[in-house]
Amino acid sequence: MSSAPANAPRRTGAWLIGARGSISTCVTYGLAGLRSGSLQPVGVCTEHPSLRALPLAPVDGFVLGGHEVCDRSLEDSAAELVREGILREDLVAGAAEEVASVSSRIVPGAVDAQDRGSAGLADAALRLGAAPPREQVEKLAADIAGFRAAQKLDRVVVVNLASTEAARPAQPEWERLDRFEEALERGRAQPASLLYACAAFSAGCAYVNFTPSLGSSVPALREMARREHQPHCGNDGKTGETLLKTVLAPMFRARNLRVLAWQGYNMLGNRDGEVLNDGAHREAKLKNKDEALRSILADERVHTRVGIDFVPSLKDWKTAFDYVHFEGFLGARMSLQFTWTGSDSALAAPLVLDLIRLAELASRSGESGEMAHTASFFKAPIAGGTHDFQAQFQALLDYAARHPSRSSPAAGAPRSGRS
Amino acid sequence: MSSAPANAPRRTGAWLIGARGSISTCVTYGLAGLRSGSLQPVGVCTEHPSLRALPLAPVDGFVLGGHEVCDRSLEDSAAELVREGILREDLVAGAAEEVASVSSRIVPGAVDAQDRGSAGLADAALRLGAAPPREQVEKLAADIAGFRAAQKLDRVVVVNLASTEAARPAQPEWERLDRFEEALERGRAQPASLLYACAAFSAGCAYVNFTPSLGSSVPALREMARREHQPHCGNDGKTGETLLKTVLAPMFRARNLRVLAWQGYNMLGNRDGEVLNDGAHREAKLKNKDEALRSILADERVHTRVGIDFVPSLKDWKTAFDYVHFEGFLGARMSLQFTWTGSDSALAAPLVLDLIRLAELASRSGESGEMAHTASFFKAPIAGGTHDFQAQFQALLDYAARHPSRSSPAAGAPRSGRS
Amino acid sequence: MSSAPANAPRRTGAWLIGARGSISTCVTYGLAGLRSGSLQPVGVCTEHPSLRALPLAPVDGFVLGGHEVCDRSLEDSAAELVREGILREDLVAGAAEEVASVSSRIVPGAVDAQDRGSAGLADAALRLGAAPPREQVEKLAADIAGFRAAQKLDRVVVVNLASTEAARPAQPEWERLDRFEEALERGRAQPASLLYACAAFSAGCAYVNFTPSLGSSVPALREMARREHQPHCGNDGKTGETLLKTVLAPMFRARNLRVLAWQGYNMLGNRDGEVLNDGAHREAKLKNKDEALRSILADERVHTRVGIDFVPSLKDWKTAFDYVHFEGFLGARMSLQFTWTGSDSALAAPLVLDLIRLAELASRSGESGEMAHTASFFKAPIAGGTHDFQAQFQALLDYAARHPSRSSPAAGAPRSGRS
Amino acid sequence: MSSAPANAPRRTGAWLIGARGSISTCVTYGLAGLRSGSLQPVGVCTEHPSLRALPLAPVDGFVLGGHEVCDRSLEDSAAELVREGILREDLVAGAAEEVASVSSRIVPGAVDAQDRGSAGLADAALRLGAAPPREQVEKLAADIAGFRAAQKLDRVVVVNLASTEAARPAQPEWERLDRFEEALERGRAQPASLLYACAAFSAGCAYVNFTPSLGSSVPALREMARREHQPHCGNDGKTGETLLKTVLAPMFRARNLRVLAWQGYNMLGNRDGEVLNDGAHREAKLKNKDEALRSILADERVHTRVGIDFVPSLKDWKTAFDYVHFEGFLGARMSLQFTWTGSDSALAAPLVLDLIRLAELASRSGESGEMAHTASFFKAPIAGGTHDFQAQFQALLDYAARHPSRSSPAAGAPRSGRS
Repeated sequence: MSSAPANAPRRTGAWLIGARGSISTCVTYGLAGLRSGSLQPVGVCTEHPSLRALPLAPVDGFVLGGHEVCDRSLEDSAAELVREGILREDLVAGAAEEVASVSSRIVPGAVDAQDRGSAGLADAALRLGAAPPREQVEKLAADIAGFRAAQKLDRVVVVNLASTEAARPAQPEWERLDRFEEALERGRAQPASLLYACAAFSAGCAYVNFTPSLGSSVPALREMARREHQPHCGNDGKTGETLLKTVLAPMFRARNLRVLAWQGYNMLGNRDGEVLNDGAHREAKLKNKDEALRSILADERVHTRVGIDFVPSLKDWKTAFDYVHFEGFLGARMSLQFTWTGSDSALAAPLVLDLIRLAELASRSGESGEMAHTASFFKAPIAGGTHDFQAQFQALLDYAARHPSRSSPAAGAPRSGRS
Repeated sequence: MSSAPANAPRRTGAWLIGARGSISTCVTYGLAGLRSGSLQPVGVCTEHPSLRALPLAPVDGFVLGGHEVCDRSLEDSAAELVREGILREDLVAGAAEEVASVSSRIVPGAVDAQDRGSAGLADAALRLGAAPPREQVEKLAADIAGFRAAQKLDRVVVVNLASTEAARPAQPEWERLDRFEEALERGRAQPASLLYACAAFSAGCAYVNFTPSLGSSVPALREMARREHQPHCGNDGKTGETLLKTVLAPMFRARNLRVLAWQGYNMLGNRDGEVLNDGAHREAKLKNKDEALRSILADERVHTRVGIDFVPSLKDWKTAFDYVHFEGFLGARMSLQFTWTGSDSALAAPLVLDLIRLAELASRSGESGEMAHTASFFKAPIAGGTHDFQAQFQALLDYAARHPSRSSPAAGAPRSGRS
Repeated sequence: MSSAPANAPRRTGAWLIGARGSISTCVTYGLAGLRSGSLQPVGVCTEHPSLRALPLAPVDGFVLGGHEVCDRSLEDSAAELVREGILREDLVAGAAEEVASVSSRIVPGAVDAQDRGSAGLADAALRLGAAPPREQVEKLAADIAGFRAAQKLDRVVVVNLASTEAARPAQPEWERLDRFEEALERGRAQPASLLYACAAFSAGCAYVNFTPSLGSSVPALREMARREHQPHCGNDGKTGETLLKTVLAPMFRARNLRVLAWQGYNMLGNRDGEVLNDGAHREAKLKNKDEALRSILADERVHTRVGIDFVPSLKDWKTAFDYVHFEGFLGARMSLQFTWTGSDSALAAPLVLDLIRLAELASRSGESGEMAHTASFFKAPIAGGTHDFQAQFQALLDYAARHPSRSSPAAGAPRSGRS
Repeated sequence: MSSAPANAPRRTGAWLIGARGSISTCVTYGLAGLRSGSLQPVGVCTEHPSLRALPLAPVDGFVLGGHEVCDRSLEDSAAELVREGILREDLVAGAAEEVASVSSRIVPGAVDAQDRGSAGLADAALRLGAAPPREQVEKLAADIAGFRAAQKLDRVVVVNLASTEAARPAQPEWERLDRFEEALERGRAQPASLLYACAAFSAGCAYVNFTPSLGSSVPALREMARREHQPHCGNDGKTGETLLKTVLAPMFRARNLRVLAWQGYNMLGNRDGEVLNDGAHREAKLKNKDEALRSILADERVHTRVGIDFVPSLKDWKTAFDYVHFEGFLGARMSLQFTWTGSDSALAAPLVLDLIRLAELASRSGESGEMAHTASFFKAPIAGGTHDFQAQFQALLDYAARHPSRSSPAAGAPRSGRS
């Protein structure tokens, strides 16, 4: 961390990969609503009283742009969210001009090899995805750099919001940066998420991976982030069922109650759900959802299961049912069950805003490498550590309390809810 | 806190008020099972790795005795718990001799004036409850002192496990100890829980109030605890729905999600449920259950409701249904609902063991007054502070980490789940 | 029942009491949507294959009008339902002209004496509610007759959709028509719902009571219905929790499983919920919800409870949580719990259409008195009989199968689901 | 159906396949409890008032015997059910003598080829399962005939209660009896359930298939039942989630509500659950659970899913979570979710008693072939027809109302709940 306090933020760009998907649509219209004052920043964690002392970039100053591989428009995505009762019609109507401007800054991305057969892909994105990997990285990086120059931005944060890509067996070149660059030179195909992360760092940008795809989590790219002095974080936004698991499991642990089984059933019907319906894509996701639990409970005997089912009619309304069977004193068998019903995209969007702000501050403050203080936002924090949500959130408050850029002398990090 | 490290514990007594009720029955048979090795200490928090460095009295050394106002026997209470699937038949069979010995140390308590009409009260307890208050205190204190002498105990902890007593309007004499003692002299009737707490302190004992009754929470008795150099804690064990509320509400706060309504419905069928079916008895309980939520959410607009219904067939199996309606980003309306099914007594009993151990250590260490570090155990901690369960539990870990009696040099308090 | 087959329907009017409330708003916009083809008749029972042989009036021919005591407009009610995600914006936009025409046919009703203090009441409705009862009936009947004449309608069905009125102790004049008419003459104040029902019959109209208010259910008005040769039905539309109870309870009975307790918790936030928050208004409702269960289970020992709580943020989205505790073979204790989340108004509106069609047919066919075949629509069917939903629905199919107006020879009533 | 009224029942035998499994254990101890008067016949449908006029064999006269392939004893199975809170200790103690007598009448069965690798199989059962199929049938039939002779029984009903066997592709010889017998002659291996059914009919016994295994449901064995003049029924007892589905789905249909998705998640931990954890065994079960829903809703667009997960800690306590997403009027999206928690074996056992009584009566009355009136007991009734539970139950009441053996003149079949 730089010892000199960071300057006040000026113009910040946010480059969204998957820029016309549901989350990006919520981000785009949400920003418009925040700017016009018709929305409150509900769900934005960095508005928490204990974090306000940080000189974070004001949310309403963000300039948006991005990559996208599908054909649909932001307006179509919005219309769908209105039909689902997530976006308000008046918000959409009021944001038309601003959205048109964002749309003009969205360019074709690179389709992952395993997704080539999907419906609705743009030709340009298919072509770029079929180019040699080095060429793809250069083109993607040039898009980002061009955006920064054209919009006269001080800093750009790249955020991966694309659908989960298919899991692959680990490759030796992912272990070291020199090998990875050599593999690129040799034209060895790579998952798209690695190329995007590589492009972000090449372009001198911080990178946030909100998906379960590999992104910057492999050693080679973590090395690259350090070499390019860029902060990064991920993987896989913790928005719903896993959030609850990592809030509830520490209670069972603290009370020394023995969890016998924790069954989790997720139902969703948006594009993410459709993609996850495929085995290879699902694999990465389920791994993230299951590990948190075992790690917190610290008990190998616990029986766990996480399922994700595609239920088209639910669309963006993700519904999770969890059943926890546990043993108390005297061997008595008890249970907790919960049902969570939330709009996946509306839960994710404000966290994306938080992460852009935190990545921008880290970049401005000269911090590089894994942003360990963002663990509470992710199912699989790349810096590792506890999965206990409250402990992770406390780490964020601690980071804020001792950050050199604080507007006032650090007075200790008051814990959430204590004030 | 005494600066001198405490000696190793010798013989500890636990004096239970309501000694033949469900919780006491679970405590009694549970201790027998722990001693014989047929039970594991599941649900006992002080077995948490981070608390093991404290020189707590071994659970299996506790000697039990107590006051009781009802006629039923421990064996009858146990048979009921076996029928409900809470106590195991073999545990009951194996503990027969030990339970007979505990039974011989249970003597008549004092019936609260408002409970005189209840069924199944012992004549001696009715007579004692009708005596002048000063006389009641003296008799109760003498019983406790006699138990300590007869059993050659180093320390006795008094625990209130009696059914909730009827709420009363606050009295001026509860505000100062001199006025309270004067009122006793003048023969002014007092709630039984105040007399028990007064007797505990008079007898030089630590006092734990696991019920919503007043106990030691009024200023006069808090003053008395300090005068008599005794530690005490309460009120109202946090075992189920409120525990979940104080675990989940901080998540909504940390994520800046706006809780619109939190409806809680509790169903139970044990004696506690029967007593709470009466308006005056219910009042105290509901107050405790509702305050925690408002305090954590720090939002006056949230609509809350807590209901308790007596459902005879459920017996000790308390079932709570909570519905949380909340707003996320973009104004999207979401919900969380949970159902908790647990044996109220089996959840409470191990916490009682924890509190006896912590009170004994505090007493041995020369600590007096409110045991602020036990807040995580109570719906309405008498020392106040946050209701956030994880923050409360962290305070307990912090207490353990810096306690002078620790067996090894304090090496910081590792947080639950981090190791 | 008339032996002569009824003529084909011509023009049918539906006169709604509470014509700008939520249900009426759903009826009004729903009819517009059905007419324009933008809506399917989902939720309309009379579209069931086994009922299609009846010569029911086509839904899209209904002409609407009604009484209303509140000031709000149909457009305001619609805007609220759009915000709640119940009405679609495009449906509202497309129906503007038609709705304006319906609005012009809504006139002030009569405010019930006990509701005089409520907010938002129209002055004219307050004045009418304060007039002598006989005068009120005459004015209300004249409004309905005027509507029929102006619109050249063959038949008008009057439907009570107003908020529940406060329960009153039974009056002797409700027992016989002559006494009731005498009481009107003498100026004795009466609940508004009785006056509306009296007006409907006076105007020669069939009457449907979709609310828990008294309406036509008292003996005096049942006598009047017969004297005026009008069919009528009620009380209290069975749309949600009670519907489920009357579907599930027969299963427990058929399987000889012993229900120990059935706890029902209802949460809602619309005007109905607000009105029911008041003790006197709630009384009638809860009575209806509880009786069905006891009647089906035929077991006096079952512990039941029905609660209704006003949760403002839920608005029209009624959420019911039911917990059923039951005993199986060997005395094993089991449970069923369910959560029902439905838009109260969108569930009610299609049933209102069904009842208008059935009442119009009954009237056209010369049937008078209680429409026993409509029992499946009501929590408290005025003709009594079983509360078992499937048995009630079978009675409707049987009625259809043997109705003289059937388009084809009755071939027995095929049971739902068999075809 | 025979026109002559049947004689009063004399001695009835019940031969259980899987005679030491959980359901059989509940049947055995349950019968003992009914005989001694310590149990009420809760869960026994044939005790329904409308069925009492049938001259059914008294439950407490049944003589038990059976086949079993596993080593465990009835006493061990009972001890497990006591630990799970399903069987009462006192019931077990009181039945010791009677159970010893039943145990002496349980002989080795034949292990299905695909189950040979399972743990705990008795050697004799493995040997018998490896013998030529014709020999197996002869041995199994001789066991049953020997039981009838030794116990001087008038009639024996054979009931398949064994764990689900692995699904197999349909074989040509299952289509016609002559081909099946030829295949037996030629020594072609057959699923064990077919051999048991064949043995039952060979021995002149009625046959009940309470499992999803093939049993008597293939055309060849249906032909055999008719040839041997024996009644039979199956498949797969409808005890929990499917029961609820077939009770609730008709409501959605009657109300013309459009079910969009019906997701069903089943968790169980008994031997049945363990067996179903295997893909091949699961296949048959899931097929039965899914078909009922589609058939009742008569809508091909509905998205359904049924999952069964093995959760060891739940043991016999089957927990099912169903989420129903549906559309109402105006396109409004609504939901119903339920959680069912029941002891699988305690729910099944009384239905087994019902089916033995009904099969015995049918046999005594000279009825042969599929017992269509038992459809309400099965997930996949072999005689087909509606899956609507209430319609199925009505068919049973109708059967009873017109049965020639009724003790009093048939007075119409009063429907459940109407009286």
